[in-house]
Amino acid sequence: MASYNVAPLQRLVEQFERLPGIGGKTAQRLAYFVLNMPEDRAREFSDAIMDAHKKIHRCRICCNFSDQELCPVCRSETRDKTTICVVETPRDAIAIEGTNEYKGTYHVLHGVISPLNGIGPDQLCVKELLSRLNNGEVNEVIMATNPSVEGEATAMYISRLLKPLGIKITRLAYGIPVGGDLEYTDYVTLARALEGRSEL
Amino acid sequence: MASYNVAPLQRLVEQFERLPGIGGKTAQRLAYFVLNMPEDRAREFSDAIMDAHKKIHRCRICCNFSDQELCPVCRSETRDKTTICVVETPRDAIAIEGTNEYKGTYHVLHGVISPLNGIGPDQLCVKELLSRLNNGEVNEVIMATNPSVEGEATAMYISRLLKPLGIKITRLAYGIPVGGDLEYTDYVTLARALEGRSEL
Repeated sequence: MASYNVAPLQRLVEQFERLPGIGGKTAQRLAYFVLNMPEDRAREFSDAIMDAHKKIHRCRICCNFSDQELCPVCRSETRDKTTICVVETPRDAIAIEGTNEYKGTYHVLHGVISPLNGIGPDQLCVKELLSRLNNGEVNEVIMATNPSVEGEATAMYISRLLKPLGIKITRLAYGIPVGGDLEYTDYVTLARALEGRSEL
Repeated sequence: MASYNVAPLQRLVEQFERLPGIGGKTAQRLAYFVLNMPEDRAREFSDAIMDAHKKIHRCRICCNFSDQELCPVCRSETRDKTTICVVETPRDAIAIEGTNEYKGTYHVLHGVISPLNGIGPDQLCVKELLSRLNNGEVNEVIMATNPSVEGEATAMYISRLLKPLGIKITRLAYGIPVGGDLEYTDYVTLARALEGRSEL
């Protein structure tokens, strides 16, 4: 089917197909959409890709993406530098920023420990985290990895590493999501919500 | 939420958000994916966008996209030049090619007549279709616009234009989709399937 596409178009379709969650049909739709853009809009798109690649690197402190040496959070003087929230990806940090409740800093691991995929602690930004804890400024490390098997294992691994440093290590609370329905909450989550119950 | 993104990344997210069917969360996921690509892969992507724009134009005969003066179908000597299948978009032509049943040529209108959106016959490749019919080579024009209100109206409009030329004009059959379920077929489709019934 796709063989009917002309070569430069086919190459564009293949580029879109490589993106996560984009199948053949969607890739084709996107490629045609890009083709029908005015040329300057297409150039903006094309440039934005290379621009992001050239200008963005990891923050020297927290390993989050940044276009400067330090990311906005590490640069900020109003953020509480005594608390570090450890997340898997920059998108998780954005999600927590979205709450407007967290005033500490982040540390982005850029992945989770996953032996099946050949990813160990050395492939993650774990040593950067350790070096942040040496100056004694940090009081609390919040483990905010995902509630998945790998996320849990990574949180456990890191908390064991940090234990000897005498720093308080916490984990995000498990429980029923706000606006959720008890009836439809899975049993594991419900058990965790019971376990973590607090006094009114 | 997105304001936390660094500028070049935010621009890339916005570029993805402009694509059809891509919402904010997906745009962010795609932008981060592109950012995590090796640089040469990102360059391939970036180049593919501009390449498609520079190298692809419309086939001189059928208005389909092509990187040469004529598209592969119009160039081919084995295709039946006496039959033209009129479609709305290049993707529709690809879909029909996918059947491996059609040996004629195509004509791509690049849209449908839609007065509400200010699109009349002049914005479509209708005059290019008319000029193909002047040499008397064409026996049949198959109207393969979509079974939507606009698609129907466009098919009607073009068939009226072509009637005086004495060329056979046909329309794709309506009916129950293969593998479909009578019980769940809408009444209009079912009525059309009855109407178009054929002898066994």
